Amino acid sequence: MAKELTDFKRMCVHTITTKPWPIEKAAQEFSAAGIGAITVWRDALANRDIRQTGNLLRDLNLEVVSLCRGGFFPALTAIGRQTAIEDNLKAIDEAEALGAPMVVLVCGSAPGQSLVESRKQIQDGIGACLSHAAAARVKLTIEPLHPMYAGDRSALNTLAQANDMAEALNSPNVGIAVDVYHLWWDPDLENQIKRCAQNRNLSAFHICDWKTPTLDMLNDRGLMGEGCINLKQIRGWVEESGFTGFNEVEIFSNIHWQQDQHQFLEKIKETYLKYS
Amino acid sequence: MAKELTDFKRMCVHTITTKPWPIEKAAQEFSAAGIGAITVWRDALANRDIRQTGNLLRDLNLEVVSLCRGGFFPALTAIGRQTAIEDNLKAIDEAEALGAPMVVLVCGSAPGQSLVESRKQIQDGIGACLSHAAAARVKLTIEPLHPMYAGDRSALNTLAQANDMAEALNSPNVGIAVDVYHLWWDPDLENQIKRCAQNRNLSAFHICDWKTPTLDMLNDRGLMGEGCINLKQIRGWVEESGFTGFNEVEIFSNIHWQQDQHQFLEKIKETYLKYS
Repeated sequence: MAKELTDFKRMCVHTITTKPWPIEKAAQEFSAAGIGAITVWRDALANRDIRQTGNLLRDLNLEVVSLCRGGFFPALTAIGRQTAIEDNLKAIDEAEALGAPMVVLVCGSAPGQSLVESRKQIQDGIGACLSHAAAARVKLTIEPLHPMYAGDRSALNTLAQANDMAEALNSPNVGIAVDVYHLWWDPDLENQIKRCAQNRNLSAFHICDWKTPTLDMLNDRGLMGEGCINLKQIRGWVEESGFTGFNEVEIFSNIHWQQDQHQFLEKIKETYLKYS
Repeated sequence: MAKELTDFKRMCVHTITTKPWPIEKAAQEFSAAGIGAITVWRDALANRDIRQTGNLLRDLNLEVVSLCRGGFFPALTAIGRQTAIEDNLKAIDEAEALGAPMVVLVCGSAPGQSLVESRKQIQDGIGACLSHAAAARVKLTIEPLHPMYAGDRSALNTLAQANDMAEALNSPNVGIAVDVYHLWWDPDLENQIKRCAQNRNLSAFHICDWKTPTLDMLNDRGLMGEGCINLKQIRGWVEESGFTGFNEVEIFSNIHWQQDQHQFLEKIKETYLKYS
């Protein structure tokens, strides 16, 4: 089991977690709470000067962990796949402007073709972005998604698959995000976390909880402790592997977004210390 | 790929697929359509003489493939686990009375304890039922469920895990159900189907489809062809492994249950031939 958390220095909050707040408000609140870092979703940057926004975050003593998200590489047509690559090159530019060292990838899946073909297209798509990522000093971070998203969001559904792909791409500009929501059920998770870290691919760690029942397949994630994920145990595996990055709180929740976001942030802090 | 299906002799329909129909009506309709078999859900037997119902099904030339369902072995208390075992012994008696050679198991998962512990309790629970199953000549068929049910319905989420458990139990009264809805995403599925059959554990094959998007985690399964599952390919793997049992149509769907069930059965037949 991981050591108890006693402060918020290694805590990162995703802008989507407090979606009702504009990024400027979220950043002020996170900073005032002593939270160490922020991960920025691209929708939060709409109509902003990205470079100025990055400076604002750093002025508030927030480390910018990553930009969410690129990916969605598979498509049934060559034009669709090229459009996806161009959007990912743009995401890399945005991450560089923001000062984010990573773009997190929701890799995609195209109904109408096999998962095997979709995975090939993901690997080709990432490969096509690597030289641009290297020039921008940005890491493309593969996030394997829960098998319930295999049909339309990601043909990569286990950490083993992400490890296979990262090792095949074999680049310092490729990493992997371990998100407990997607991977907690996997009986091979501990081994695959070790493998991921040993190959220097473990670049992000996302936390939340899995509620029973889950009412919505996208937007009913739980606060830490609201569900059944063995969160402390998984954090232990991640830290024992040598990972020293942030614990990123990424919660999509229609229920929590409807709450007063100040009270919600207080609950995030409380449950982070108690259950993470 | 599997050979094309040209008739309904190897087709089985689950009573829950046409839930609005009482079992007597469903059986008449299935029989009149030339469908070879039926799988009976326990709720369909409420207030019936089970033995008589079994005879009625056979009089209509329907083979009774299995009784759904037993399982739900894990619990936080010893009393809870014993209650589960007793319910499974009762299910075995019901299967024997019905003349069904199998009870399909939704194995269960208990929030509040680890998946590892839940799996141990599943194995112990099945083990505790084996002598009763042998005396009744009933097979207990483990059905691994999709990882999105790991929290509360099944701590067995891959065919590899089900194979491990069936091999550990090592009994002619233990089998495994391969359900495309639960397993289609698994990159190791073809190998695990081979392993399952080689160890004589492959005892049932369930079909439907995975819709994108899926609107409900339980009751939004698709008709064959409505979704993205590589159904013909998986049936090919199952048949190449030597399986000669039925293709069981098991669709839980709020949408399809609201339709005229005659029209729905026609669609089932049509899509069975075209997409299965």
